[in-house]
Amino acid sequence: MAEPSGSGDSISLECPGLDTAAGEEFLQEVFQILLEEGVRKSTDVTQKVCDWKEPQELRDLLDLELRSDGEGRERLLQRCRDVLRFSVRTGHPRFFNQLFSGLDHHALAGRFLTETLNTSPYTYEVAPVLVLMEEQVLAKLRELVGWSSGDGIFAPGGSMSNMLAMNVARFRRFPESRSRGNWDLPRLGLFASQESHYSILKGAALLGIGTDNVHLVRTDERGKMIPEELEKEIQRVKAEVPSTRWTPSPTSVPATGYGCMWTADSVTWNPHKLLMVGLQCSAFLLHDSSGLLQRCHGVGASYLFQRDKFYDVSLDTGDKSPQCGRRADSLKLWILWKAVGTRGLAQRVERAFSATRYLLEQVKRREGFQLVMEPEFINLCFWFIPPSLRGQENSPEFWDKLGKVAPAIKEKMIRRGSMMVGYQPQGSHVNFFRQIITNPAVTRQDLDFFLDEIQELGWDL
Amino acid sequence: MAEPSGSGDSISLECPGLDTAAGEEFLQEVFQILLEEGVRKSTDVTQKVCDWKEPQELRDLLDLELRSDGEGRERLLQRCRDVLRFSVRTGHPRFFNQLFSGLDHHALAGRFLTETLNTSPYTYEVAPVLVLMEEQVLAKLRELVGWSSGDGIFAPGGSMSNMLAMNVARFRRFPESRSRGNWDLPRLGLFASQESHYSILKGAALLGIGTDNVHLVRTDERGKMIPEELEKEIQRVKAEVPSTRWTPSPTSVPATGYGCMWTADSVTWNPHKLLMVGLQCSAFLLHDSSGLLQRCHGVGASYLFQRDKFYDVSLDTGDKSPQCGRRADSLKLWILWKAVGTRGLAQRVERAFSATRYLLEQVKRREGFQLVMEPEFINLCFWFIPPSLRGQENSPEFWDKLGKVAPAIKEKMIRRGSMMVGYQPQGSHVNFFRQIITNPAVTRQDLDFFLDEIQELGWDL
Repeated sequence: MAEPSGSGDSISLECPGLDTAAGEEFLQEVFQILLEEGVRKSTDVTQKVCDWKEPQELRDLLDLELRSDGEGRERLLQRCRDVLRFSVRTGHPRFFNQLFSGLDHHALAGRFLTETLNTSPYTYEVAPVLVLMEEQVLAKLRELVGWSSGDGIFAPGGSMSNMLAMNVARFRRFPESRSRGNWDLPRLGLFASQESHYSILKGAALLGIGTDNVHLVRTDERGKMIPEELEKEIQRVKAEVPSTRWTPSPTSVPATGYGCMWTADSVTWNPHKLLMVGLQCSAFLLHDSSGLLQRCHGVGASYLFQRDKFYDVSLDTGDKSPQCGRRADSLKLWILWKAVGTRGLAQRVERAFSATRYLLEQVKRREGFQLVMEPEFINLCFWFIPPSLRGQENSPEFWDKLGKVAPAIKEKMIRRGSMMVGYQPQGSHVNFFRQIITNPAVTRQDLDFFLDEIQELGWDL
Repeated sequence: MAEPSGSGDSISLECPGLDTAAGEEFLQEVFQILLEEGVRKSTDVTQKVCDWKEPQELRDLLDLELRSDGEGRERLLQRCRDVLRFSVRTGHPRFFNQLFSGLDHHALAGRFLTETLNTSPYTYEVAPVLVLMEEQVLAKLRELVGWSSGDGIFAPGGSMSNMLAMNVARFRRFPESRSRGNWDLPRLGLFASQESHYSILKGAALLGIGTDNVHLVRTDERGKMIPEELEKEIQRVKAEVPSTRWTPSPTSVPATGYGCMWTADSVTWNPHKLLMVGLQCSAFLLHDSSGLLQRCHGVGASYLFQRDKFYDVSLDTGDKSPQCGRRADSLKLWILWKAVGTRGLAQRVERAFSATRYLLEQVKRREGFQLVMEPEFINLCFWFIPPSLRGQENSPEFWDKLGKVAPAIKEKMIRRGSMMVGYQPQGSHVNFFRQIITNPAVTRQDLDFFLDEIQELGWDL
């Protein structure tokens, strides 16, 4: 057998090569640091949201280099404190920058449990609890979608879930694609809303479909796909590329963890967003219960999915996924659900709507704030017009100048550490703020602060 | 704007919708349960590896159903205990069933930190520490591979890393594949070892290449691809399918976290295996430093990767991945590396070799144990031949009967909870045990127990 580069047999196997007592002590200390510097400060509105450092300054502060020798306990504990100190507090009530904002203690406990278990829910034998839990959580999510039967799997993020949907759609219409590739199929076309998530383009590239074959369909002023435009686009593509086929199903509907659903063959549901269970938790739900998912992705690796096991091997669900080892993302959602019930989850969704409604009123009422469009869901998109630009809406440079305002305000808020929110341009709209409140810890006071702060930071621009 | 199904404005925004004090108390209690029932018992050799329950029995015990109302603290804490109790102890010194066996306390602390931070290393603004850490860890892994420059990204598991390698290889040779799909390319062929991981087949299906276009090349008796066979297979495919193109690069070499490397354009390295950092940690490393990865996967979503940010946006590395939100998998490896140093990691690898060597000697020495092949790395594959089958090696039913032995022993060990190890058939070889020791907590005594236990459980078969 091959020899490693080092000494080999000089290593004694008589004693364990890990010091569990010291390890447990270390974990205890790290946990107290986590609780104080991580959890408590992350949720404390009087703390800063971030402590901005330039990249080189931060590199120097963190001393990231990995060396030959290990470090002592005190040094390591200080490193843990530094990591927390210089990271952005995504659980803070004034962190609005991402859809995964907020910190739920039950879900975090579920994540700690998951990390401690350290197993993959691909077979019942190594993850009996987690396989059954995933089965239950998926069934419950499907039930909320309105399906009494079906299938599904957790995927590493919503983009991957969307790609699974695209792959299953191709396979359902052209089962031979799996073995023969795309070459024997007609050129496929993928029709999506022009406001669809960028994972559709990424998926088209990865799946060998090609981004040119993604046809983006016009939306109305509220961002919804116009059905007549879809019909027109299909006819246009059919005429231009006669060999293109399109299949309307399984259509995938990206949802954000919410109760209003559409008619679809599959749904991507990301409880790591609105339901705040922590990165990552994305369920790919399928209405089909004929085993499509398994037929599409399954390969039956003989070292994992042995058919001669002594238990019901239909519980070895891992082959439904293109992944092999896979994180158990259902546990954190399950424990949160047990803690607050469906009712408690619904209240959070309702609170998110209330917060959006409140902010909408304020934006409409305050001078200098202008809506990009009436919110359709809980996305509130608006511009802040500094006094220097007010009344110049018809001047030729207005929009160009306004497009520079959001980035400038954003820089100021990050340097101050007072809050974080996203901005973006879209289509003909120059940079605007995009506020989505998912964290139930956010109060009216935080929302007032949010608008006051934008006003203050943008006043002199 | 749309209304949620519930009451809406009845929800008051005056107070936070989360009770942080109760949440912190809950976390404290869960942590103590984790430490005792999870960490300590998981690493204690006197405990059982698993407490087997039939699926229906386990469903009843766990009461998995998700209901309208939430549950009280005591009930939830009991649920956490139950989850730990009925899960398999993958950190146990006698859990050999998977390559992610073992529990390292430093890495676990890193996982807890990661979960507390709950952010995605796609942009510097929301993950400054984690972006720089990923940069450092990837550079260090590349350095061990032998590359002074290059690129890379963490992916959700080795299978996904392998798929990234396949996609980048296609894109490098045929950049137009990204926009045009596979239709305008010649039929691609993918040549891989017949012992290659099943993710190659899964990837070929997902990427629209097709499993029929994967050509498995014969290996020698040690499981290594035979170069002449590769050449022959290429010639055969070229002759049969004249339009097939093959590109030898970027070749991807799946590694298990170990120092002996090959000439390759890309490497998949899974520190969640031999380096024991916890699921998931898979680095896709690329020798190219021309920005191939970004060009292959990047889409430039305007709500994340704004070009008008005030800092160096080359640090917004998320667009190199087909994922959007992505877990920060580098931190757990970084903290472990800081704790034990490169030297400490190397010692673990050496210990794994020592353990394999010891077990190899024992298997050769013990009656009734028979090697499948000399181990090439740290995979030790062997049969146990029960006394009833000994001396019948030439009888027509011998192999058929032997193939039933490993599953029978496996069932007994799981029901007893004494240990867990994988078995599998491969090619013409009937079911054999596949032992891979990665956990440095494993002692000589555990290895002796391992063989004794197989012998005892298989004696009467």
